[in-house]
Amino acid sequence: MQLIDGLKVAKEIKSQISREVNDIVISGGKRPHLAAILVGHDGASETYVANKVKACEECGFESTLIRYEENVSQEELLEKIQELNNNCDIDGFIVQLPLPSHITERIVIEAINPNKDVDGFHPVNVGKMALGLPCLISATPNGIVTLLKYYGISTKGKKCVILGRSNIVGKPMALLMLQKSMGDATVTICHSHTSNLKEECRQADIIVSAIGQPHFVTADMVKEDAVVIDVGFTRIPDSTKKCGYHLCGDVDFDNVAPLCSFITPVPGGVGPMTICSLMQNTLQASKINH
Amino acid sequence: MQLIDGLKVAKEIKSQISREVNDIVISGGKRPHLAAILVGHDGASETYVANKVKACEECGFESTLIRYEENVSQEELLEKIQELNNNCDIDGFIVQLPLPSHITERIVIEAINPNKDVDGFHPVNVGKMALGLPCLISATPNGIVTLLKYYGISTKGKKCVILGRSNIVGKPMALLMLQKSMGDATVTICHSHTSNLKEECRQADIIVSAIGQPHFVTADMVKEDAVVIDVGFTRIPDSTKKCGYHLCGDVDFDNVAPLCSFITPVPGGVGPMTICSLMQNTLQASKINH
Repeated sequence: MQLIDGLKVAKEIKSQISREVNDIVISGGKRPHLAAILVGHDGASETYVANKVKACEECGFESTLIRYEENVSQEELLEKIQELNNNCDIDGFIVQLPLPSHITERIVIEAINPNKDVDGFHPVNVGKMALGLPCLISATPNGIVTLLKYYGISTKGKKCVILGRSNIVGKPMALLMLQKSMGDATVTICHSHTSNLKEECRQADIIVSAIGQPHFVTADMVKEDAVVIDVGFTRIPDSTKKCGYHLCGDVDFDNVAPLCSFITPVPGGVGPMTICSLMQNTLQASKINH
Repeated sequence: MQLIDGLKVAKEIKSQISREVNDIVISGGKRPHLAAILVGHDGASETYVANKVKACEECGFESTLIRYEENVSQEELLEKIQELNNNCDIDGFIVQLPLPSHITERIVIEAINPNKDVDGFHPVNVGKMALGLPCLISATPNGIVTLLKYYGISTKGKKCVILGRSNIVGKPMALLMLQKSMGDATVTICHSHTSNLKEECRQADIIVSAIGQPHFVTADMVKEDAVVIDVGFTRIPDSTKKCGYHLCGDVDFDNVAPLCSFITPVPGGVGPMTICSLMQNTLQASKINH
């Protein structure tokens, strides 16, 4: 069994990006600039945005954090998005989700210029990805494909079972793994209404679990030598930790890992790659926009 | 075994549309208007476009056929698309594919106003469909879902195996069958690189075949009481037919049909429903645009 070290891979890729940015700046080009909009003070969102800002530093990007209180109006948010769309200095930006309930996320996402939508959530980017056209690809699925490639894990013709059909992970992951130029795998998507989920998983060469249920994937669901990618990251209250919680994946790691050829840990597997893909998208957006 | 009669269902839906159009016109509303651009004189394309024009008549739509010779420039085509985008009288339009090799289909499709893209091929519509948002849905997959609903075929939690990963059928079909509000099925997508295709098919409650290989789906691939939807329509030269060919589906119908609970014939199954969905999209576009 080999552990997939997302931290290590993400670090390497961020160094590569940093060197590339250095070359760009030396030859008179523009330093990429990522902006993030954060509404309110949700603990998890604060952490994610702080990590994104830190990753920008590691990559040699400029970053700007724009904060709003919980009660910001949708109009004000949309005005800011318009301003960022028109600001040539900003290459890409994200609006950290979730947003307060009085704001319609869909309207906010669709207001972002698709060429600056480094989260890859805009329908234009989702559609282009589905069609196999160049675009800004949703960060988590892209990070997973990068990990598989890095470890030389063959996916062509393999059976890949994806647990979860979310817009952010499950569906785009399925589309990427299906694409001839990406995964080229046979893809099955399972979800809460799948009747024989264990049997589906037992047939999988590669399992990608993105359902957010701790320890859902148990040893009896995994065949010998399978590759298991765990996208789950549920926060479990834990008084022994300084932050008050520990992260828990979808996979019963201790019992599943011995069966696997490759497996991602939580934390330190997919998580760091998501931010890394966001950095790759920002660099790509910077190249497109200039 | 019950035969799924696409001709009958399409006829019923077109009558419903015709009655609705009548009501709209009587109450002072606008009669929907579909335009079609046809480049060159390909036999199959001529037939499809003629059938679409005929369906418009049956639905009480206005229709306009715009013809270009094979050597039309891409610029001229794009100018016409711009004109149709800006023409308030045109509710929706299609550019019949394939186009001559000197024209880039992707550029042509992306030039169409997504609100008039009644084929549902524009990345915005594909993306919105993937995300489960209201949009103009690609005609063939939508027609298949309509057929399944009409015959009361339950799909929730069922195993649906899709053969083929084309942008026009396989991928959008997978996304629709997966959607909670549509198929809500467990979906597997197989293709040319799938290693154990027969075994995948044998597990399917519903098979949708869209690969264009006559008689590819044989009896040993279909489990008892499966539902088989045949999207194939290969033209086989046939001197006994007036038109010089007969249509052949992907399914070895004679041997597969006895095993099935439901099966679509070719012709007369999915084909009529594709045009019918195009009419539904045109009516929908007309409502959105006015």
